[in-house]
Amino acid sequence: MKTTSPGAVLVLGGARSGKSAFAEKLVAGTGLAKHYIATGRAWDEEMRERIEQHKVQRGSHGWITHEEPLALPERINDTARDDRVLLVDCLTLWVTNLMLEGHDIPAAFDDLSAAVVTAPGRLVFVSNEVGLGIVPDNKMAREFRDHAGRLHQQMAQLATEVYFVAAGLPLKMKG
Amino acid sequence: MKTTSPGAVLVLGGARSGKSAFAEKLVAGTGLAKHYIATGRAWDEEMRERIEQHKVQRGSHGWITHEEPLALPERINDTARDDRVLLVDCLTLWVTNLMLEGHDIPAAFDDLSAAVVTAPGRLVFVSNEVGLGIVPDNKMAREFRDHAGRLHQQMAQLATEVYFVAAGLPLKMKG
Amino acid sequence: MKTTSPGAVLVLGGARSGKSAFAEKLVAGTGLAKHYIATGRAWDEEMRERIEQHKVQRGSHGWITHEEPLALPERINDTARDDRVLLVDCLTLWVTNLMLEGHDIPAAFDDLSAAVVTAPGRLVFVSNEVGLGIVPDNKMAREFRDHAGRLHQQMAQLATEVYFVAAGLPLKMKG
Repeated sequence: MKTTSPGAVLVLGGARSGKSAFAEKLVAGTGLAKHYIATGRAWDEEMRERIEQHKVQRGSHGWITHEEPLALPERINDTARDDRVLLVDCLTLWVTNLMLEGHDIPAAFDDLSAAVVTAPGRLVFVSNEVGLGIVPDNKMAREFRDHAGRLHQQMAQLATEVYFVAAGLPLKMKG
Repeated sequence: MKTTSPGAVLVLGGARSGKSAFAEKLVAGTGLAKHYIATGRAWDEEMRERIEQHKVQRGSHGWITHEEPLALPERINDTARDDRVLLVDCLTLWVTNLMLEGHDIPAAFDDLSAAVVTAPGRLVFVSNEVGLGIVPDNKMAREFRDHAGRLHQQMAQLATEVYFVAAGLPLKMKG
Repeated sequence: MKTTSPGAVLVLGGARSGKSAFAEKLVAGTGLAKHYIATGRAWDEEMRERIEQHKVQRGSHGWITHEEPLALPERINDTARDDRVLLVDCLTLWVTNLMLEGHDIPAAFDDLSAAVVTAPGRLVFVSNEVGLGIVPDNKMAREFRDHAGRLHQQMAQLATEVYFVAAGLPLKMKG
């Protein structure tokens, strides 16, 4: 039995904006079984610490965690169910991983869109807004923020709710 | 015959936020003859590609394009008419060009303000919000974001509507 | 006699967003005696100019200025009174100073929270949102934006009003 409205939620925010904590509250509010899809790769000590901090903040109560740095659309297809809510944290780390592995980015984004549209249950996506600073010197960083910006637009169009979080406070952009 | 309310619109947003597409929708909604004032200079291959992508996105239907990297106030004075809407994309590239050519920035901003206040028809300005990242190491980048921020404040005061666009979604800040 | 509602206000915004000018308007609106707590240190010529510009913008009418780069909680404790409004400009410079002097950041943030909760009169805090650009290359810059983001969340929770300012226009996030 489906207990929530259909559709996906997109939670955007800056670094340490409280976006993950806000997304976790949304997830808890659904009353569905909580699945966490972590896209981050612990490639160095700092990243390992950041991932660990997120785990501590989230707590272990009732979460089932999946690590999925690349095959996010497939993982959503496999995991989503009517009685589950999936929290994907975060899209920007997924984009980073796709770039580092040389994947076809637009194709991956289309696969994700297709997965989102057909997934049962609820989906909550967290992502970093990265396009509001000075143009980066570095070409890869410029490409990254172009990809991230395009993905955010694509996901915001599919989502039934979009939030922008700053200082822990959500601003509803859609829904 | 003037068919729209007077005044200018300012559309702010980050990189790949969908600000240009949103501005183009506003322009189409006026029903006026569409003039596009491109401030960007194709000084390298990447920039040429970005300009080309904007052209493709905008389509050629019914647009008259003007390239104006520096003399934006004069171009507005010459082009604006009651039955026209001018889309200026974007102010931050204009600021970049002014800086690279060593122009008097505050004087140029005042000229732009004067042109905006007296222009007939409608004006839509697109600009990049660039001040929400870490303070740049580079002095010129710091000066650039100071100039851009001041120009945004000056234009927002004149504008009848101001939007902040993220993930393709407009947030009305004024109007 | 207390003439305003209790509580603190947080004003967030990017570089040259008009956040200080907006905060000064809030302060003037209280009708209380105006105290300015400047956290910035004039460690180079550029910084000296920026501080000087703020002074000119603010004017000297009726302001009592305190310079306090580090002991902000203590200064608030000492300065706050029922018939005063304190404008602290800005929190991010305070964080910078704490980091450069090797202070215990979480402890300092807790001291600030305690001071805010117990202070009589009104408090207005200005701070830079710095987390919406590309992840900085520099580890200290990453730590800085983590600290700033955490402080903003902590202060936003205590504040009765929170504003996000862009292009001189305030967006109410809370209150």
